[in-house]
Amino acid sequence: MTLLSEIFEQPERIKDLLGSQRKQIEQLAAKLRAHDIHYVFLAARGTSDNAGRYANYLLGAANGLPLALATPSLFTYYKKPPVLKNALVVGISQSGKSPDIVSVLEEGKRQGCVTLSITNASESPLAQASDFVIDIQAGAEKAVAATKTYTTELMAVAMLSAALSGNSKSWAELSKVSAWMKQVLKQDALIKEAVQRYRYIDQTVVLGRGYNYSTAFEWALKLKELTYIIAEPYSSADFAHGPIAMVEPGYPVFAVAPKGKVFNSMLDMLQRLRSDIQAELVVISNDKRALALAQVPIAIPNDVPEWLTPLVNILPAQLFAHHLTVAKGYNTEQPRSIRKVTETK
Amino acid sequence: MTLLSEIFEQPERIKDLLGSQRKQIEQLAAKLRAHDIHYVFLAARGTSDNAGRYANYLLGAANGLPLALATPSLFTYYKKPPVLKNALVVGISQSGKSPDIVSVLEEGKRQGCVTLSITNASESPLAQASDFVIDIQAGAEKAVAATKTYTTELMAVAMLSAALSGNSKSWAELSKVSAWMKQVLKQDALIKEAVQRYRYIDQTVVLGRGYNYSTAFEWALKLKELTYIIAEPYSSADFAHGPIAMVEPGYPVFAVAPKGKVFNSMLDMLQRLRSDIQAELVVISNDKRALALAQVPIAIPNDVPEWLTPLVNILPAQLFAHHLTVAKGYNTEQPRSIRKVTETK
Repeated sequence: MTLLSEIFEQPERIKDLLGSQRKQIEQLAAKLRAHDIHYVFLAARGTSDNAGRYANYLLGAANGLPLALATPSLFTYYKKPPVLKNALVVGISQSGKSPDIVSVLEEGKRQGCVTLSITNASESPLAQASDFVIDIQAGAEKAVAATKTYTTELMAVAMLSAALSGNSKSWAELSKVSAWMKQVLKQDALIKEAVQRYRYIDQTVVLGRGYNYSTAFEWALKLKELTYIIAEPYSSADFAHGPIAMVEPGYPVFAVAPKGKVFNSMLDMLQRLRSDIQAELVVISNDKRALALAQVPIAIPNDVPEWLTPLVNILPAQLFAHHLTVAKGYNTEQPRSIRKVTETK
Repeated sequence: MTLLSEIFEQPERIKDLLGSQRKQIEQLAAKLRAHDIHYVFLAARGTSDNAGRYANYLLGAANGLPLALATPSLFTYYKKPPVLKNALVVGISQSGKSPDIVSVLEEGKRQGCVTLSITNASESPLAQASDFVIDIQAGAEKAVAATKTYTTELMAVAMLSAALSGNSKSWAELSKVSAWMKQVLKQDALIKEAVQRYRYIDQTVVLGRGYNYSTAFEWALKLKELTYIIAEPYSSADFAHGPIAMVEPGYPVFAVAPKGKVFNSMLDMLQRLRSDIQAELVVISNDKRALALAQVPIAIPNDVPEWLTPLVNILPAQLFAHHLTVAKGYNTEQPRSIRKVTETK
């Protein structure tokens, strides 16, 4: 099965990307530093949009860069793009082909902004509309549900952040991601067994916060694409502002809660869900208190720094979605109604 | 019932807001124009975040302002706020009390940015952290599910946009919103009858695009808070990038598709859902082609300009959520697990 083999390919792709692209991304960062960039204006759809959510936190926390997620319809349908001053305009797209994302980059260039694309297709229309290109070098991705292009997009963002801050500790940590990924993939058999319990769910919510807001969105997207259950992602804070009302005893809640700055806020929410509302919990974490609250605890390595946990956490989430798809009797390689390249305006 | 009376109060609150605040908002706009503002950095949660989504499109299309939605945890938990240069920092909050939103405004002020709050509590901590305050003057909102504070927040954003562009046609159109709202509230009996068909749904997706991306989010939020069904909002473009795989014959899809620049893209999606996938459609629109595709068509007045449709479209959506709550036998005034003021960090 291609999807499963692409999931297992990720440690290698991440290692290769770090090896082959570090120098180029450091040169790119040096060039970007020469520009007076006040904020990032980022366009992406689907899985790549979730890589954008990671960039939102990482470039903010590590590089002091505010980030605005573009609303492509302002560029395409309304034809009233905002005035972009001192913006770095970034497009993220596996195929580099979606016309709406290309439009945002072209308009950025027209307005004189620096433009950068992060893509698996370095000759694509998106790449051609960009001053700079980071080639994520994931190799051909055949399964419709994106996996290795997601983690290589995250890795490209993480490498860009490390290059912009010039922090050697960050590069040392980046060099360990591949090994952490390999370690977490050893949970495959455990996850394959655990999904049986969820054979008949038709809905769930997926919680994550801070850096792992991205993981919550991407786990939910894989569940929707592959298993056809409705899985809605939330930060624990937004969840508390209304949607928590949906949860009744036994309701399945999936959560991504590794150690880090937002851990206590996630733990509070998990305790409230388990004790007050008797929800059912699937938890990805490296903290014993969070894992102890879960009916299905999925452990990740203890020493992953918070900013890199999204690269590791998504692997068991991908495995979970894959095995649940098999358990439900659906096609893991070709989900209904969607294609590999979605061209939206 | 308070919720229903607050829904019906909205035409009056909108009329009052326009009458009492126009001059003050025009003065505010004149002061803002004196600053070199490159983009808007906006913090909000829940219903107010949906008003922020409206601002994202309207301030972009009508005023050329890019907008970044803040990630409050960077300010509170990570304590690494981004560097905000030439940003107008905006907070939207009914109560003005949520500590995370207040933190973003305080940090904006500390960094020397112009700060503006849009709130129903002009003496609140949020208002005190702001250089400028737009008081939405909705009066006390007693139902936990926000209705009139949402539409007055939208109206405040729309008035600010009109004041910034100094377009007299916009003000003329704004003066008609209250009457359009009254007209659409006449659909109450029809909607009360129509919800019966959905007594046993436990999930749905809500589609909207462009200006009405906000309406899709807010309709979905009311459904989640009040009826406890999982209702996930999407732009039709993001929906095509994966989640459409979830939809099977008979699946209920709610859509907001008024005439305007994104109408054709919404119509394409509705046709695909109805013809190819045999989904079931509830559609709010003023275009006959979209209404004809729906099992439950909900018509809004024909002459509402697209930029103001979110103020009108949300009223039948609120009525729908209210009546479905009654049909399901739940409490419309006090949903389980949530409070009127949610204080998150």
